[in-house]
Amino acid sequence: MTSAPSVSYSITVRLEVPAGGRAVSELTAAVEHAGGTVTALDVTASGHERLRIDVTCAATDTAHADRLVEVLRQVPDVIIHKVSDRTFLMHLGGKIEMQAKHPIRNRDDLSMIYTPGVARVSLAIAANPDDARRLTIKRNSVAVVTDGSAVLGLGNIGPQAALPVMEGKAALFKRFAGIDAWPICLDTQDVDTIVEVVRSIAPGFAGINLEDISAPRCFEVERRLRDLLDIPVFHDDQHGTAIVVLAALTNALRIVGKDIGHVQIVMSGAGAAGSAILRLMLAAGAKDVLVADVDGVIHPERQGLSPELAWIAEQTNHAHYTGDVRGAVAGADVFIGVSAPNVLTGADIATMNPGSIVFALANPEPEVDPAEAREHASVVATGRSDYPNQINNVLAFPGVFRGLLDAHSHHVDDSMLLAAAQAIADVVSEGELNANYVIPSVFHPDVHNAVAAAVREAVSAASD
Amino acid sequence: MTSAPSVSYSITVRLEVPAGGRAVSELTAAVEHAGGTVTALDVTASGHERLRIDVTCAATDTAHADRLVEVLRQVPDVIIHKVSDRTFLMHLGGKIEMQAKHPIRNRDDLSMIYTPGVARVSLAIAANPDDARRLTIKRNSVAVVTDGSAVLGLGNIGPQAALPVMEGKAALFKRFAGIDAWPICLDTQDVDTIVEVVRSIAPGFAGINLEDISAPRCFEVERRLRDLLDIPVFHDDQHGTAIVVLAALTNALRIVGKDIGHVQIVMSGAGAAGSAILRLMLAAGAKDVLVADVDGVIHPERQGLSPELAWIAEQTNHAHYTGDVRGAVAGADVFIGVSAPNVLTGADIATMNPGSIVFALANPEPEVDPAEAREHASVVATGRSDYPNQINNVLAFPGVFRGLLDAHSHHVDDSMLLAAAQAIADVVSEGELNANYVIPSVFHPDVHNAVAAAVREAVSAASD
Repeated sequence: MTSAPSVSYSITVRLEVPAGGRAVSELTAAVEHAGGTVTALDVTASGHERLRIDVTCAATDTAHADRLVEVLRQVPDVIIHKVSDRTFLMHLGGKIEMQAKHPIRNRDDLSMIYTPGVARVSLAIAANPDDARRLTIKRNSVAVVTDGSAVLGLGNIGPQAALPVMEGKAALFKRFAGIDAWPICLDTQDVDTIVEVVRSIAPGFAGINLEDISAPRCFEVERRLRDLLDIPVFHDDQHGTAIVVLAALTNALRIVGKDIGHVQIVMSGAGAAGSAILRLMLAAGAKDVLVADVDGVIHPERQGLSPELAWIAEQTNHAHYTGDVRGAVAGADVFIGVSAPNVLTGADIATMNPGSIVFALANPEPEVDPAEAREHASVVATGRSDYPNQINNVLAFPGVFRGLLDAHSHHVDDSMLLAAAQAIADVVSEGELNANYVIPSVFHPDVHNAVAAAVREAVSAASD
Repeated sequence: MTSAPSVSYSITVRLEVPAGGRAVSELTAAVEHAGGTVTALDVTASGHERLRIDVTCAATDTAHADRLVEVLRQVPDVIIHKVSDRTFLMHLGGKIEMQAKHPIRNRDDLSMIYTPGVARVSLAIAANPDDARRLTIKRNSVAVVTDGSAVLGLGNIGPQAALPVMEGKAALFKRFAGIDAWPICLDTQDVDTIVEVVRSIAPGFAGINLEDISAPRCFEVERRLRDLLDIPVFHDDQHGTAIVVLAALTNALRIVGKDIGHVQIVMSGAGAAGSAILRLMLAAGAKDVLVADVDGVIHPERQGLSPELAWIAEQTNHAHYTGDVRGAVAGADVFIGVSAPNVLTGADIATMNPGSIVFALANPEPEVDPAEAREHASVVATGRSDYPNQINNVLAFPGVFRGLLDAHSHHVDDSMLLAAAQAIADVVSEGELNANYVIPSVFHPDVHNAVAAAVREAVSAASD
């Protein structure tokens, strides 16, 4: 599977060429001949003899980007100056900042924002703690907490290397839901310490978004924090993914005309995402699910099941199937992969029931080549942005937290996750729904508001 | 001691009066007759019969503000609508927010700020952890950490009630030094837990500003964190105060023509601020200091001295004076109070040496009435903004952290604090220096840059 050139591997090459002749057009031709795309060509200085040009091109990966610089260097009479990586440029100095909402121009401003005026506000909150949600950032703040143990697909790279991801997450919280999130990257991977740290910093936040904490520790961290805190605790890798998968599945089932209570679902992957997807699908009415991990389909007789896998064995595989995932998909209606590349082939998908649904979400290399899958399945979704039907957590977490914060919710439960999934599914109207559009874009103008409204309503129903 | 009307007790009264006649001028007269000040008078709606006016007035305290509303209500034909408190209005929804530095307009932006592009940045930091200071918010971020145990003069009001103060602090960090600070309000007052929490969250920050943590716990928290962390840990109530006091003392001594090594200094207060001021004055060359707490001047023979007070006894009071602070100031050159109201009278100040210096910093009620003190002392400073020579921490901490962050400093030591104090003192030129101007305003255009430059230089000298 080859990738198309992407701006995430985009470079800007500052170079000089002779002012006359064909040099400029040769630049573009050279890049395109080498498989790159020229996305911008800015003349930054011009003289009678020479032009200075910033050529921005998209490559497929870093090696390809290096190759594009080489082919530009070989254009006759070109002089290569600085090569900049656009993604790194965007990260210089960090991607987020703190801003004060009011100017501090003079002594009067100072005496209201800080001492002595602020003392009266503090006293008001001391007298009535609920006022913190009215008079402080707690109204709108979420901590994005990671221990850096399972960052994206990169593994245990530690808290500092996780920081760019958490900053990006914070930026998305603001962009899509107006939420003030701040990264908290922990120099510990001990469950007790993580729990104690998050419990301790909670007073300044209205919600906790756990992120990229590896399984099975993430389950215990979340469970204990939910017991301890009076603000919602949401592990995006679990619940964000589960919400979006259920939304996409809801619409995919509409297309093939099947009901979630009557389909057989085979999952590959029993980690954080897998178990959360399973739990939410069960809550949505799924009855017949099989879950495989690297050792094959999980069944109650398997030796040495962890508490998490034992729970999965209890909830699934009522026929006690003991084979591997390839055998399991034969005759199944839905395949959901949150595991590893190339678990299945197109031939395996061909053994599924007619009207089959395939969500191959391993990233960047899916469980099955989506092009092959599409030859046999009715609906195919991936985690990639360069195929239709991207399962992207960004569809869920901003609106979910917006709804929880607006409702001053003290917790988050399955009823709210189900409401969020239904809201995302419903953004795709009957007229728009088709096999290549089961899930809206993260830039859809309605999706985050719709999710927030649904979650607000679910909070209100839960507290009735 | 009566206070002048202040905007920190400022209210806006929306009211209606008849359009004709003397009603408007009667509003102003009524407020001023009752001791308030009308700071703004905005006609927000006008008709032939009636005017709607927002009258903003400064009061001396909340009871006075209520009284101003009453006198307005008694103006003939006035109808009072809504009364708003300007300070509370400014705090609604919190005073700070998180902002993304780059727009997220489309898929391309998303793929650079978040996945997949961000993965390359994370990998770069995993390979070279120092890159976190180049490619993340760690370059410019400070955690403002409190446990809510000693907030302003309000005492142990807890972490949520402390939040407005910490937000204000964060706003000042940005305003005066461009630093991105975020409040971390802790739901614990246990030293071990505080240390473990701050240690754990440190990877995302380039500095820790401890704030409003009560003595003696603050000493141990700071000492242990300085040992554990590779970023500077600064307790503003100690070191910020000490820097500004030393700056003001340096200039006050210039005025009276005395040398810090040859004056007798009497202090009232042996808490966080007091002990830090003492330590920094000793580092600056002070030799003859007496420190009093509620039980009188500290001396080595006193029973039951805590480790902190035992250290003070060792460093001070070489003549083993055992009386109270009133006796101690007789014949002294400098009095520095960081304790409680009304410890001394004007008559006590009269017993000091000629050319005496009095810093009465208890807030809002100083150790001695500054008007009385000024009858006898050559230089008087307070912590209040309505007298000359305000000792205000805002002069120090923004520039100190700017310098530490710019220099990528891994710690902060006395050489940097001394440099900061000298830089603040030097902002007042020989020509400007007088008894009512020993310390610049926090709005002085040079002070924060000067402090930052001096600290950068001290960091560089310390690492030579």
